[in-house]
Amino acid sequence: MKFGGTSVADIDRIARVAEFVRLEADAGHAVVVVVSAMAGETNKLVDYVKRASTRGTSRVSDNLEYDVVVSAGEQVTSGLLAAMLQSHGYKARSWQGWQIPLKTSEAHGKARIVDIPADNLAPAIDSGEIAIVAGFQGIAPDGRIATLGRGGSDTTAVALAAALGAERCDIYTDVDGVYTTDPRITQDARRLSRVSYEEMLEMASLGAKVLQTRSVELAMAYHVRLRVLSSFADPAEARDGKMHPCTVICDEEEIVEKHIVSGVTPSRSEAKISLMTVPDEPGRAARIFNELAMANINVDMIVQSPAKTGKAANISFSLDETDLSKAQDLLAGLKDDIGYTDVVADRNVSKVSVIGVGMKSHAGVAATMFKTLADRGINILNISTSEIKISVLIHSEYTELAVRALHQAYGLHNLAEAS
Amino acid sequence: MKFGGTSVADIDRIARVAEFVRLEADAGHAVVVVVSAMAGETNKLVDYVKRASTRGTSRVSDNLEYDVVVSAGEQVTSGLLAAMLQSHGYKARSWQGWQIPLKTSEAHGKARIVDIPADNLAPAIDSGEIAIVAGFQGIAPDGRIATLGRGGSDTTAVALAAALGAERCDIYTDVDGVYTTDPRITQDARRLSRVSYEEMLEMASLGAKVLQTRSVELAMAYHVRLRVLSSFADPAEARDGKMHPCTVICDEEEIVEKHIVSGVTPSRSEAKISLMTVPDEPGRAARIFNELAMANINVDMIVQSPAKTGKAANISFSLDETDLSKAQDLLAGLKDDIGYTDVVADRNVSKVSVIGVGMKSHAGVAATMFKTLADRGINILNISTSEIKISVLIHSEYTELAVRALHQAYGLHNLAEAS
Repeated sequence: MKFGGTSVADIDRIARVAEFVRLEADAGHAVVVVVSAMAGETNKLVDYVKRASTRGTSRVSDNLEYDVVVSAGEQVTSGLLAAMLQSHGYKARSWQGWQIPLKTSEAHGKARIVDIPADNLAPAIDSGEIAIVAGFQGIAPDGRIATLGRGGSDTTAVALAAALGAERCDIYTDVDGVYTTDPRITQDARRLSRVSYEEMLEMASLGAKVLQTRSVELAMAYHVRLRVLSSFADPAEARDGKMHPCTVICDEEEIVEKHIVSGVTPSRSEAKISLMTVPDEPGRAARIFNELAMANINVDMIVQSPAKTGKAANISFSLDETDLSKAQDLLAGLKDDIGYTDVVADRNVSKVSVIGVGMKSHAGVAATMFKTLADRGINILNISTSEIKISVLIHSEYTELAVRALHQAYGLHNLAEAS
Repeated sequence: MKFGGTSVADIDRIARVAEFVRLEADAGHAVVVVVSAMAGETNKLVDYVKRASTRGTSRVSDNLEYDVVVSAGEQVTSGLLAAMLQSHGYKARSWQGWQIPLKTSEAHGKARIVDIPADNLAPAIDSGEIAIVAGFQGIAPDGRIATLGRGGSDTTAVALAAALGAERCDIYTDVDGVYTTDPRITQDARRLSRVSYEEMLEMASLGAKVLQTRSVELAMAYHVRLRVLSSFADPAEARDGKMHPCTVICDEEEIVEKHIVSGVTPSRSEAKISLMTVPDEPGRAARIFNELAMANINVDMIVQSPAKTGKAANISFSLDETDLSKAQDLLAGLKDDIGYTDVVADRNVSKVSVIGVGMKSHAGVAATMFKTLADRGINILNISTSEIKISVLIHSEYTELAVRALHQAYGLHNLAEAS
């Protein structure tokens, strides 16, 4: 069971978490709980480190002391939840990353989990003790505290579930599952009863903030069955036998009735750069994208079209909005080298994607998408596709319209609300 | 160097602490710094644990999770100070209790330091790195975090100084030294330039809150030279060569000019219990004090006087005010056993003590005390003495009057303000 920051925001919320944990223990399950820092704590601690590192030039999370300071938040929550379970008469204890030990790579501030020996944890769990694990933290080869990057508690939970061979991994959050689209955009959004790892990966990386991408990758690799459910539900109802709504994330094979399209995902943090009149000679485009890659700038959709004049092309691509000015600076320095006439940047673009494993075996999904958008007069700027995803870049002002239209076109509003 | 909670209360205060540390490093000293939690943090965390342990019957600090939660405060400060020193270009790193490892007894919440191997710390310090140690915490034989009890960071600092063979141990606090008495009671209070360990021990246990008793015991046992100084002084002045005021705590032999009396200490947290008409038979008194000791109630001054009627005695004793109701309950249950007629409790009493190593070789100190109090019409209820201390119990309302009168009678206002 994993509980995020809003689920453990204060002592009353932690008390509710304790009830969910007791439910599982009372049902005879061996339980490991992973907790985040109380909501707001991590931001406060990160701010402290920033203010203490006034003269540093590098990113604040590159400092090894960042991990020391920020991991204190999860330490506090783990102790509080353990104490609360004890006062209800349950055997429970907290585990810090270094006590397990949850071994990580050397990359402090954004470490990856390398190994979780079960030597310490497994006997404790076997003895009937509920293990409360501080999420987001581990111990690096240098013996120092390492953190996994923001949202890393999801990854801690999935990695522990894999290491311990858990039957399932329940991610409690502030929503009761994964939806066909953002419910703030359309009331027609439906909760999905099952989503495949592949779909969830596309959704996670495209901005549905339910799960950290890395945790879904891990779950897929180790076939860890995930459930996403809400910690704001009433545990007393569950005790009375009511099944709370949730979404199961599992292998594609387990999903009998595959949706052609499972979700429509908007992403607003996009930008577009166009290089005008690039001389059409071999190697020019390669040069551009190589330089961008070297600078750690992720480029997404690329379109090359003939320029109006001479033997030249216009090249445009989309990228994360936060990388825009960095990319502009870099391209400005390459102007003479590349030989383009002009560079045009546009922040007012969004990416809208339709995702579904059923796409693999169904034709016509793209055609439906293009026709639906064309019928609304929405111009497609760029396109990219994968086996289970089609994304288009459009002007931002059409984002909601496009999402609602596509949601309807694929019949997602007709999905029966799963029980 | 040890810095308490008010000295690291916020980022600006931590910046000032960093300046003090840099001064020592720049002077070519190898430096180990021990830090407390930011002022208020520990209370907040203790309160969290209390609220999480609603149904517990035992003391909150008896829970092993208390140590986990509360020690997070020192962890944060250690990381922040290390980051700040790094951003000034100094080599520095934080050390948690388990990383050193600072080994403690099993008594979580009030553990004692058992061993501090220098294997990890010493090479780091030798390499020119400033070690920032999280105070108050260590690792117990069970591999879990153990805390040393409130004020334990003083003890961490002295124990580290002993383990590493430090030249001295500087305790930075919110006052610039140890005073002849509480300056809030009389402006005549003078800072002492030197105090012996024995004197400081009596002062610490009698309520002068500058240092934790345990830390002074350790300093005495290992001859660690302590300095008490203020972190509110201006580090820039020290850089310009100005010596900031302080008090040195050292062996008696190092103090050339011994004061007969070094300090007058009031303690208000006292109470008095009198048992009336206890049958004067062997074993009755022993029975009373044995039962109190079994209940962990510390009894201080005992007076036995003949009762007015029959072959009986009145027995009175002082104790800590917080133990009063517990003692009353216990004695009520023993009434038939002991055979006393009545029990009288009094919360309105204070203890005033005069302390000084010079007392050992000077007669007349007690006589001066009794005459001074008698001249002011102050009635002495009980008396207790040690080799370097005389304490009297008086009615609380006379506390300040008694302190001022004694301070003057022993000429403490004439002590030259030490440089």
